[in-house]
Amino acid sequence: MDFTKFYADRVVPMKGSAIREMFKRMADPEIISLAGGNPASELFPGDELSKIAGKLLMTSPTLALQYGTTDGYPKMRDCAIERAKKVNAYKDGDMALIMTGANQGIDLTAKALINKGDKIIVESPSFIGSLNAFRTYECELVGVKVEADGMNTEALEEALKNNDGVKLIYTIPTFQNPTGSTMSLEKRKKLIELANKYDVAVLEDNPYGDLRFSGEDVPTLKSLDTEGRVIYAGSFSKILSPGMRLGYIIGDPSICSKIEMLKQVNDVHTPMLTQLMCVEFMKKYDIDKYIAKNRELYGKKCAAMTEAMEKYFPAGKVKYTVPEGGIFLWCECPTITDIAPVVDKCLEKKVAIVPGNNFEIDINAPSNKFRLNYSSATIEKITEGVRRLGEVLTECL
Amino acid sequence: MDFTKFYADRVVPMKGSAIREMFKRMADPEIISLAGGNPASELFPGDELSKIAGKLLMTSPTLALQYGTTDGYPKMRDCAIERAKKVNAYKDGDMALIMTGANQGIDLTAKALINKGDKIIVESPSFIGSLNAFRTYECELVGVKVEADGMNTEALEEALKNNDGVKLIYTIPTFQNPTGSTMSLEKRKKLIELANKYDVAVLEDNPYGDLRFSGEDVPTLKSLDTEGRVIYAGSFSKILSPGMRLGYIIGDPSICSKIEMLKQVNDVHTPMLTQLMCVEFMKKYDIDKYIAKNRELYGKKCAAMTEAMEKYFPAGKVKYTVPEGGIFLWCECPTITDIAPVVDKCLEKKVAIVPGNNFEIDINAPSNKFRLNYSSATIEKITEGVRRLGEVLTECL
Repeated sequence: MDFTKFYADRVVPMKGSAIREMFKRMADPEIISLAGGNPASELFPGDELSKIAGKLLMTSPTLALQYGTTDGYPKMRDCAIERAKKVNAYKDGDMALIMTGANQGIDLTAKALINKGDKIIVESPSFIGSLNAFRTYECELVGVKVEADGMNTEALEEALKNNDGVKLIYTIPTFQNPTGSTMSLEKRKKLIELANKYDVAVLEDNPYGDLRFSGEDVPTLKSLDTEGRVIYAGSFSKILSPGMRLGYIIGDPSICSKIEMLKQVNDVHTPMLTQLMCVEFMKKYDIDKYIAKNRELYGKKCAAMTEAMEKYFPAGKVKYTVPEGGIFLWCECPTITDIAPVVDKCLEKKVAIVPGNNFEIDINAPSNKFRLNYSSATIEKITEGVRRLGEVLTECL
Repeated sequence: MDFTKFYADRVVPMKGSAIREMFKRMADPEIISLAGGNPASELFPGDELSKIAGKLLMTSPTLALQYGTTDGYPKMRDCAIERAKKVNAYKDGDMALIMTGANQGIDLTAKALINKGDKIIVESPSFIGSLNAFRTYECELVGVKVEADGMNTEALEEALKNNDGVKLIYTIPTFQNPTGSTMSLEKRKKLIELANKYDVAVLEDNPYGDLRFSGEDVPTLKSLDTEGRVIYAGSFSKILSPGMRLGYIIGDPSICSKIEMLKQVNDVHTPMLTQLMCVEFMKKYDIDKYIAKNRELYGKKCAAMTEAMEKYFPAGKVKYTVPEGGIFLWCECPTITDIAPVVDKCLEKKVAIVPGNNFEIDINAPSNKFRLNYSSATIEKITEGVRRLGEVLTECL
């Protein structure tokens, strides 16, 4: 039977993430992917986690295999709070919830807040996974342009002034996906000021904050918030393992208690074993040392990518800003209007990049931008991938 | 800041599961819980899974720790299909999706189908987790009474005839939660006939189907469905481990593809390690042998519980049907109208049971029923728990 006639309105316009669809085609081992958002697997602490998991299941099988509580294993909540405290994102009275990846926290935050027709202000461009999650609550997305130093705050104020029914501002202020840009302290203060003035909530998504390899840290929005209106989403995906699906939400109990109830009917609780493994890893090892290794590697990979771009891209035809951390680099080709033919030719040459339209509110409008990832491939493959991409760009621009 | 004013309509009336709240109070080790739905932890294959997890992380760290695909690890999908085939719940052309517990599949099936105001026919009483998931889509729940041989099909036809906007029938046909009852073959055929006649979808939730300890198996609804309108939810929670959070959805691609997109923006994918562990466990060991051990144990525990009930309950005051499988026993006290005072007195005597109102559509209406679980506690504790419960019932009835 064809279920189309039974579809809820919210899923009728839904399209899957083009990036994750692309993953499926990447079975071809000759393709060099600069498309995904995978962290470097060469540093995964497989041996350490192997010993930890083996021991946990041997000595605490009931704890590891029985049902757990929806808000998370208590010591895992402590670990999340410990990470959040490092960036002053946890305050007395806040509630912490363990999520099966931060994406679940973002999805359920929207589910707790958004009625059909409500508005969410998002960065333009922004993370496709969050935009698609928001879209399932039939809200209207209002885009505010991201600049090299983050969201344009004048445009943000205009958006708040001109739109009724804005409940939430969603932002990735540090090493943003897809632009790699970081919001300046001045703009962060302005954003908080505007959220207070226009009485809206803020969802700060910070999966990349620990991955700075140059420049100076900027305080989190959560740390600047004096009214408790920032909900903070943290993740272990980029600092330990994405396949473990461990993230967290920290915020006022009046919102977190509702998110907890929504999680209860969603996946009941995050798997116990992965939570316990993370707790033991943080107890036995210095996770900051492990993160530092990643950070160093990403700095090198980013440098390798930009060096190759300098060498192989047609001179003056591609605009980009070198990021100070994170895993993404954002490129614009001012001499063309649509990057789609470039992306297709790249796939013929066995290199994958993500066209910019995917990150926009209107994904059907042509975009002359594309996103590159430098965390996943080896330096050798990054260089070769950029060489192939450079060939296509030289031909097309 | 108090987020109450920002709440989406769907979360305003939400209450957390009273059962899961009760879990939190159960830190008191003297309390005997006959309240939860935990499988027996004494049989968990901790040693086997310890070796499996240790080896997987040592030899395949990238596979175990990197991002996976939303539909599930391919070999894990094969495992789910293998389980489904045993009960003829997989047909050529069906799509299988791995879920982070079957509850996620139930939640996202409703999300894919239900608009505000749509109706879902549910068994009355039914599983609180599913009812609460459905409630978050602002649907109307239409209850159809469950009898000793399953849903009353005359009442089902009345409900279908008298209600516009029914999209879905949700049922746990085998060893139902909370009643422990199993729908007869005749009623199953009638349900499928009615679903065809009134053109509605069916969600068959079958987490307990493998746990029969007496009587004869009854075919799944999915196996009787010739039109592809049954969506089948399976689970590894009661046959391997609930803490691993592994379930699956099998059905027509026109519905499963939408559920996959909703999962993509929900938790991206189910954790890789637990999927890989399940695959290896099913490769290395005979899971049916393991299930048989559980079945045998549950048969003994159920017998111990009913023996104790015969001995300690006030004669003729409590009505119940002995189940042929699963993990629950459902009791009615016809001489009273509200079980709440009994439940409170039980907690004073350190035994926990779940009052029946939790499983009803109107959870505020008093109920003279309660649910007992016999899978979790040891036989000794079951006997002692029922003895304490019997004391309270003798006093109150």
